[in-house]
Amino acid sequence: MLSVAARARLTVVLVGARNPSNIGAAARAMQDFGFSDLRIVNDYSAPFEAAQLEDAATPKSAVGAASVMQRAQRFSSLAEAIADCSLVAGTTAIGDRDLQRDILTLQEVAPQILRPLAGEVSSPRPRVALLFGSEKTGLSKEHLSHCSLLLTIPLFAPEDARHLSMNLGQSVAVCLYELTREGLEGSREIPTLHEAAATADDRERLTQLLLDVMHVTDYTRRFPANASEPLVRQLTLQLGTSHREAMTWMGILRQILWRERKQ
Amino acid sequence: MLSVAARARLTVVLVGARNPSNIGAAARAMQDFGFSDLRIVNDYSAPFEAAQLEDAATPKSAVGAASVMQRAQRFSSLAEAIADCSLVAGTTAIGDRDLQRDILTLQEVAPQILRPLAGEVSSPRPRVALLFGSEKTGLSKEHLSHCSLLLTIPLFAPEDARHLSMNLGQSVAVCLYELTREGLEGSREIPTLHEAAATADDRERLTQLLLDVMHVTDYTRRFPANASEPLVRQLTLQLGTSHREAMTWMGILRQILWRERKQ
Repeated sequence: MLSVAARARLTVVLVGARNPSNIGAAARAMQDFGFSDLRIVNDYSAPFEAAQLEDAATPKSAVGAASVMQRAQRFSSLAEAIADCSLVAGTTAIGDRDLQRDILTLQEVAPQILRPLAGEVSSPRPRVALLFGSEKTGLSKEHLSHCSLLLTIPLFAPEDARHLSMNLGQSVAVCLYELTREGLEGSREIPTLHEAAATADDRERLTQLLLDVMHVTDYTRRFPANASEPLVRQLTLQLGTSHREAMTWMGILRQILWRERKQ
Repeated sequence: MLSVAARARLTVVLVGARNPSNIGAAARAMQDFGFSDLRIVNDYSAPFEAAQLEDAATPKSAVGAASVMQRAQRFSSLAEAIADCSLVAGTTAIGDRDLQRDILTLQEVAPQILRPLAGEVSSPRPRVALLFGSEKTGLSKEHLSHCSLLLTIPLFAPEDARHLSMNLGQSVAVCLYELTREGLEGSREIPTLHEAAATADDRERLTQLLLDVMHVTDYTRRFPANASEPLVRQLTLQLGTSHREAMTWMGILRQILWRERKQ
């Protein structure tokens, strides 16, 4: 269960993102999973400003990333952007680059990111940065040299695939999903149905009703092999799992009986 | 480990998607995780055709969803689109809709989707459909009535959030990530470094070199408390984990010694 306070200490850093829509999509994924600290590293401010404008122009209820975009900060160097972070994890595609570094899967790295976020011991609480590169080139070797952990999302790679990389917003969403997979404080509870389950008595009444229906409609005479009581009992197991559903089925069967007997 | 053959039996169904870019993004996520069967349910063909045109116009290497988009099929009703599927799972936001159905988290539902896909027993092999609704309204109650399983991606929900739904492409990516999380046949193997680890001997040579450097640079005399052999041995544990890195550090220390002794 990743608490709200722990999530506030994860920083998503987009390095060199060029497309304002991708910045917005990353912000939206952050909002969806309850993260708030977005930092953009870019030589020029145009994509960042465009993303903020684009976001401001869309109705908040629809996109919902407004608060993340408003609080987002731009930096002109990666070193500045991650200066206050004690763990820096970089996402990378498995390409042909000569890394001389171990790359772990997202799933393997998640506990290493979660541990310092969740830890309640040390003070000041550590901040963790999760870096994503540009849409075209990913993180450069220089960027990766700032990272103490490298991770990749395992993707399908046919033999002829040269270029293996995910859409930026989708990468951010998948990474944040993995980090909150064990539970997300503040997520809306999934309503559970407090509906009475169908009882054995419901089942038996259904079975007898269905046997009656099969009898009066002449099904039993025509297909006796299908009409044995155990077989029919088996069939009624499929008629709903709740008492309410079982009652509905009984109503349907009684109606058929009534029609048949009226004739 | 989800095999290529098993992945071919998962069908992603987009119901009422309006934005061609979202259809393209869903196709790209499918391609990334090695899924191929995309079906679009739409009253009118415009968004589907636009998505195919858009995809054809982009260089394959960049987007890589061309094969998924080319094979995609359009249907005018959901019933037709899922006619050959034996398990139908629908994604839904936890809203205020009165469902009278149990909703499970993605993580809870994944094994129920994977079991029929992975099963090698039954013939014909079952096909599983995973349904996603439109960007604005999600799946309607009528759509959900075709589903034997309902699932949701747990999202952060502040008190004032009315509208809880993810970007369509991001939802598809997160769902397919979860389904392939236990392994993805055909994913490129992450190269592991076949590099010799630093040995205890490397460490000891490093320790002695660092002690020499501290001595000749007069550090030892000025800060004797920091210069005990056990402390320095502890320090050198941080100098690289591979033999190659240890050798590099030794070179640096020897260079310092050489400079100092030359003076």
